[in-house]
Amino acid sequence: MPVVTIQVTREGTTPDAHSVTAEEKAALISGVSALLLDVLNKPVDSTFVIIDEVETENWGWGGLPVEQFREQLRARQAE
Amino acid sequence: MPVVTIQVTREGTTPDAHSVTAEEKAALISGVSALLLDVLNKPVDSTFVIIDEVETENWGWGGLPVEQFREQLRARQAE
Amino acid sequence: MPVVTIQVTREGTTPDAHSVTAEEKAALISGVSALLLDVLNKPVDSTFVIIDEVETENWGWGGLPVEQFREQLRARQAE
Amino acid sequence: MPVVTIQVTREGTTPDAHSVTAEEKAALISGVSALLLDVLNKPVDSTFVIIDEVETENWGWGGLPVEQFREQLRARQAE
Amino acid sequence: MPVVTIQVTREGTTPDAHSVTAEEKAALISGVSALLLDVLNKPVDSTFVIIDEVETENWGWGGLPVEQFREQLRARQAE
Amino acid sequence: MPVVTIQVTREGTTPDAHSVTAEEKAALISGVSALLLDVLNKPVDSTFVIIDEVETENWGWGGLPVEQFREQLRARQAE
Repeated sequence: MPVVTIQVTREGTTPDAHSVTAEEKAALISGVSALLLDVLNKPVDSTFVIIDEVETENWGWGGLPVEQFREQLRARQAE
Repeated sequence: MPVVTIQVTREGTTPDAHSVTAEEKAALISGVSALLLDVLNKPVDSTFVIIDEVETENWGWGGLPVEQFREQLRARQAE
Repeated sequence: MPVVTIQVTREGTTPDAHSVTAEEKAALISGVSALLLDVLNKPVDSTFVIIDEVETENWGWGGLPVEQFREQLRARQAE
Repeated sequence: MPVVTIQVTREGTTPDAHSVTAEEKAALISGVSALLLDVLNKPVDSTFVIIDEVETENWGWGGLPVEQFREQLRARQAE
Repeated sequence: MPVVTIQVTREGTTPDAHSVTAEEKAALISGVSALLLDVLNKPVDSTFVIIDEVETENWGWGGLPVEQFREQLRARQAE
Repeated sequence: MPVVTIQVTREGTTPDAHSVTAEEKAALISGVSALLLDVLNKPVDSTFVIIDEVETENWGWGGLPVEQFREQLRARQAE
């Protein structure tokens, strides 16, 4: 009866994608369910997986909205 | 001071509804608040209820996106 | 497939109880499950209810730890 | 490594705004991150802040959808 | 920057274990982190995994505290 | 009516403390409440702050239980 909540920013993994694709969501769902079956013997039929997509503007990291922090990180790495 | 979070898939309970209706949300809010007042004597004025509607594509069950798992369940029951 | 999370402070409803009793938890679980069946037609067999008991020191209200805020409220009402 | 989740109703603080503005979100993110650095010495680079905007229809208070409860409060105060 | 929360009942997978073991937790953490790297290309260095162990008395399923529901399921299967 | 949840590892900020102290919790509660009043004009009387302390064994980072990841970070920095 696990409940697994996956919070990620609403972004794509390829330039033309603006959020997690249906295929990627299905892969996360099956991967997490298999992991809980494998490690804790939890039947997939009573495992819930909830994917929570968060707008990048709503995700803070490093004291900044995440897009700004990523710019800061890139500048740091460029130095 | 309870906080009750209700996570449900974004679906209607009737063919023409595509999500939980305002009336149904109001019924959930009043039902949960009354339950906490009744069982734990928590005043409704300091009880928060948060309804989180999750796209069906973002809800996994049985190792699959929920729509696919429901098809699987229907097939099992048909056998 | 709802998941309902009930967050309450770890307190009893009677002087000799220091947290929610097993009976009260069972009443919350059955009440919430029945409500979701009644309002949204969600089968109880696929409804999870999670009760999260929070130490009073870990619950803030009115800008204060809840016990202190309650004292403030009592003082306001006494005036 | 704190994770701070801020749940607020999707509303503006000025008549022409219908939700929290980007500037307000940035102020919440930097304020919370600075607070955790100051109080618990948590580096901002490993602090996540997640802002969860909830439709007013999905937020219950006082046993009612929040807009209705606010009307009730205004009526009480008017008496 | 994903945050993955795994909610499970506080139970062991072997008769002498009363909760998830440290090894099992480490396997969940590494499995989930690898999955997010593989599917969404999320670096493990910015992925948080939080395991929330819930007392069985605090977990409801089928309208009952989970232990009671499991007894009901066993009785159904025995019929 | 914001609800702010602060998830931190159960650790002290001084060698002799094994978790967040009552004073630190009070500082987090008042700081967050003041921030929401300042930025979004949310009255502190209807702001809840919930502090969730997570055992270090239950917090994963970098694909490892956090204590192990910190050792890895220290080793990287020592190189």
